[in-house]
Amino acid sequence: MGFWGIEVKPGKPVPYHADNVQGKLHVTQATLGNGSSTEKSILQCSSGHKSSVYLCTLLPNKVESCPLNLEFDDEDLVAFSVIGSRSIHLSGYFVADDGDDLRD
Amino acid sequence: MGFWGIEVKPGKPVPYHADNVQGKLHVTQATLGNGSSTEKSILQCSSGHKSSVYLCTLLPNKVESCPLNLEFDDEDLVAFSVIGSRSIHLSGYFVADDGDDLRD
Amino acid sequence: MGFWGIEVKPGKPVPYHADNVQGKLHVTQATLGNGSSTEKSILQCSSGHKSSVYLCTLLPNKVESCPLNLEFDDEDLVAFSVIGSRSIHLSGYFVADDGDDLRD
Amino acid sequence: MGFWGIEVKPGKPVPYHADNVQGKLHVTQATLGNGSSTEKSILQCSSGHKSSVYLCTLLPNKVESCPLNLEFDDEDLVAFSVIGSRSIHLSGYFVADDGDDLRD
Amino acid sequence: MGFWGIEVKPGKPVPYHADNVQGKLHVTQATLGNGSSTEKSILQCSSGHKSSVYLCTLLPNKVESCPLNLEFDDEDLVAFSVIGSRSIHLSGYFVADDGDDLRD
Repeated sequence: MGFWGIEVKPGKPVPYHADNVQGKLHVTQATLGNGSSTEKSILQCSSGHKSSVYLCTLLPNKVESCPLNLEFDDEDLVAFSVIGSRSIHLSGYFVADDGDDLRD
Repeated sequence: MGFWGIEVKPGKPVPYHADNVQGKLHVTQATLGNGSSTEKSILQCSSGHKSSVYLCTLLPNKVESCPLNLEFDDEDLVAFSVIGSRSIHLSGYFVADDGDDLRD
Repeated sequence: MGFWGIEVKPGKPVPYHADNVQGKLHVTQATLGNGSSTEKSILQCSSGHKSSVYLCTLLPNKVESCPLNLEFDDEDLVAFSVIGSRSIHLSGYFVADDGDDLRD
Repeated sequence: MGFWGIEVKPGKPVPYHADNVQGKLHVTQATLGNGSSTEKSILQCSSGHKSSVYLCTLLPNKVESCPLNLEFDDEDLVAFSVIGSRSIHLSGYFVADDGDDLRD
Repeated sequence: MGFWGIEVKPGKPVPYHADNVQGKLHVTQATLGNGSSTEKSILQCSSGHKSSVYLCTLLPNKVESCPLNLEFDDEDLVAFSVIGSRSIHLSGYFVADDGDDLRD
């Protein structure tokens, strides 16, 4: 389990594949990537046929990091993408699927 | 279970229906939606006959995201609404109802 | 269980009564109430004969919401109050008293 | 169990004594105390013979509250202290030592 | 278990060794270290052969502390490093490995 991190670049949505994961993914932080643009970057999550939802907005030189608290499991078919010209780094960690274990 | 997200638009309260949910809803993030207004948007929650309570206030170009930590279950009859001219995106996740399971 | 919210108004301390609660109260968010004052509002908690402790400070037009993570149970005799001229809305949720259940 | 809060004043380190505690202490919030100084106040934690570690920095009129998420138990011999001229209020709560109970 | 804290200095990556740890490490806070530079400091985490991921960005006199929520266990071979001229203090705590215990 343990640490997880990716960089979501503008124009390159990152699908979340849970196929080879042994637990749930907790996404806990977003941080603005490199670049000189002072325009905001928005992290959004698209889930199947539903409308995309904004997860956070990062403002250069004002708010470049944002705590998140999202959990994804193997029923989730989502993709992360960025609106804006600077990438967003996501980090978090995997946790064992305690809930299910307890019920066995 | 897993990811949950909605957009709450001004003038369109969103009731929380727990009818078809297998667990509890954790609402963990609010992010300002699109728009050119620089006025603040307030997310509020109304619960039955009680007064509405402000959950967070988002300030354009200053604080456009806010972490939340709210839990709703099937006894909750609440509605989210926005004061201001820009929508607020909410995200979070469903969790299995571990507490009840443990007590069985 | 589920959602909990109140508004703490200046000059009107709100005692926390745990008498009719089936679990613990998690207070997870504070948001500035209405008003035109640009002075800060401080949320404080008094507990019995001890000195009051500041829980958070909200700054109009700068920081109008603040995440909290406080837990209260039936041994707590506390009161919330506000220093400043604008109210503070508190929100959170009740959780079942899992710890005790597990030990039975 | 339940609520915990103290004020850490400049020049007066506060040791954490776990002797008479029935569980773990979660310290979850720091808020700037009274004063007219506009200089920052830093909360630090010293642990035995190790170097002190900064836990958070509060900036008057900009960031006067900071969420924390620290846990202390009876093996911890630490002291909180403040660098700067304004005190810092700490709050949090005690939790029962569930982990140990579960393993019995 | 209990409190954990280190200072990550520029140019001196800090590897995370889990060898002599009895549980998981939760890293929950980053705070800017001393210095006169007003340039931002970025905390990053490198994990094996993958690209480094930014965990948070601290902005002098604006945002000098940032909550984190990261968990590391003994399968993690990571290193923390800083981009910028000012160090970053990290704090958190160790937790017993409850998940594994429950499954035994």
